[in-house]
Amino acid sequence: MSIVIVGTVAFDAIETPFGKTDKIVGGAATFAGLAASFLYQDVKLISVIGEDFGDNIRVITDKGIDVRGIEVVKGGKSFFWSGKYHNDMNTRDTLVTELNVLENFDPKVPDSYQDCEYLLLANLTPQVQQDTLNRLQSKPKLVVLDTMNFWMDVALDDLMEVLKSVDVLTINDSEARQLSGEYSLVKAAEKILQMGPKYLIIKKGEHGALLFGEGQVFSAPALPLAEVFDPTGAGDAFAGGFIGYLAHLKTINFNNMKNAVIYGSALASFCVEKFGTERLQSLSSSKIKSRIKEFVALSRFEME
Amino acid sequence: MSIVIVGTVAFDAIETPFGKTDKIVGGAATFAGLAASFLYQDVKLISVIGEDFGDNIRVITDKGIDVRGIEVVKGGKSFFWSGKYHNDMNTRDTLVTELNVLENFDPKVPDSYQDCEYLLLANLTPQVQQDTLNRLQSKPKLVVLDTMNFWMDVALDDLMEVLKSVDVLTINDSEARQLSGEYSLVKAAEKILQMGPKYLIIKKGEHGALLFGEGQVFSAPALPLAEVFDPTGAGDAFAGGFIGYLAHLKTINFNNMKNAVIYGSALASFCVEKFGTERLQSLSSSKIKSRIKEFVALSRFEME
Repeated sequence: MSIVIVGTVAFDAIETPFGKTDKIVGGAATFAGLAASFLYQDVKLISVIGEDFGDNIRVITDKGIDVRGIEVVKGGKSFFWSGKYHNDMNTRDTLVTELNVLENFDPKVPDSYQDCEYLLLANLTPQVQQDTLNRLQSKPKLVVLDTMNFWMDVALDDLMEVLKSVDVLTINDSEARQLSGEYSLVKAAEKILQMGPKYLIIKKGEHGALLFGEGQVFSAPALPLAEVFDPTGAGDAFAGGFIGYLAHLKTINFNNMKNAVIYGSALASFCVEKFGTERLQSLSSSKIKSRIKEFVALSRFEME
Repeated sequence: MSIVIVGTVAFDAIETPFGKTDKIVGGAATFAGLAASFLYQDVKLISVIGEDFGDNIRVITDKGIDVRGIEVVKGGKSFFWSGKYHNDMNTRDTLVTELNVLENFDPKVPDSYQDCEYLLLANLTPQVQQDTLNRLQSKPKLVVLDTMNFWMDVALDDLMEVLKSVDVLTINDSEARQLSGEYSLVKAAEKILQMGPKYLIIKKGEHGALLFGEGQVFSAPALPLAEVFDPTGAGDAFAGGFIGYLAHLKTINFNNMKNAVIYGSALASFCVEKFGTERLQSLSSSKIKSRIKEFVALSRFEME
């Protein structure tokens, strides 16, 4: 039984106060897939790339991730995004967005992917998220959807439609406010949980994350970091780590979700330590385990 | 052995999206004293008020708080602050500041206050904080200082001087950045801990609080609230709850500090539920205990 992730596999060019990259491997499915691969063996990606992607696919295949669902368009160019982060690392300007092969992305679900038990609809146009879900012959045990403000602006109806079929939605705090029209995150969560998802995770970056569901709330800390080198992909790594750990645990309940949020936070905390996928590529299970211990130490208190 | 708190006892007039008050009782020492009084019996205030304060002092004395250190200036008017909160409740405009008797505040330390073991220098001009400390015959077991950006702007040298003598500093995240010149809170904490305090608490409002010290970090959650009715006094209630619980525990160490941060957060979470001191006045130990349980449930996870 597998984790299937649909999302972008792309090139990024990133500028932060710490430096600047040429075209490097990026994309939501890339970050999420790498993160999930440390926690669960059977991870499969669905995406589209151009011929120009070439050997870069090894960033993904080196981790044993299945790429049979990644269509390679002959003569096509891969999706390219370029952005510049401001000094606070919380805001960024998009410099270039070249959709290229992504413009006509029609997600292919290979037969070998039909064993999908955990589906991550990574940040992408809601229509492609819906198509992917429709093309699975049986409904997965768990469907997680990640999205962003952009899709709320340009494809809200499609987003609302696909939300009806998902179990977990992950968005950030300003997106939760936008989607619900409520400033209080408690009220926002109440409204969003009526839109379809059974669970809502609100990612708050350096302030951690909130998990809502089953009438409960869980507050996960973020690891206080001396330096955030490059925030690109942190949200995707979070989603990948989250679904990867849930797949590992096998049982879906609020307690397991809490631990999965901690794993997602841990993977995200690694992701931001270097440019692009660099830190995730060099990661190991033992490093993840010691970081989980840091999260425990960070938030544990024993009340008399 | 007592908790002594120096700070303002004043009138506030507050406007929030939920409503508007006339002159009501406020002031940093008021909020902090009320919060501390639920956790420790022997709480003593140092402040100055005008004759106009009158019977309002009962808000404080009703909780068994010692007010012999509150000077009443004959014919004087009490400090008055008026402010209006914006919709996000995180930003506010000061409409009126009338210093009145606060302008020449020369803190009096009654002999009966010399048993002070826990001293809270609540938000106030650093010179008065220093004077209060100097007028105690023996150094208290623990000195906690709360301050704000305003004093960093207008009295930085005095603030830096008094910081040398304090054990715990409580400020918010933007103030920590201002005081240190560092954006990363980890780096900010490193620098601030070199200025004198052994422990630093960074209050992040709806995002909880961080405790730094003894080479450790603790991240305390904030209770996600459906409604923040009036944020006035939340930071003071935090400081009062923090020092009150530490005084109750008697031993100063990182573990006890963590629990005290949770108590501070709990008291702050009550404070914002109603206008001014209203919620703190009607509080009880049992309500505090059940809120502490909510904090435990909110942040506890059991990793296999």
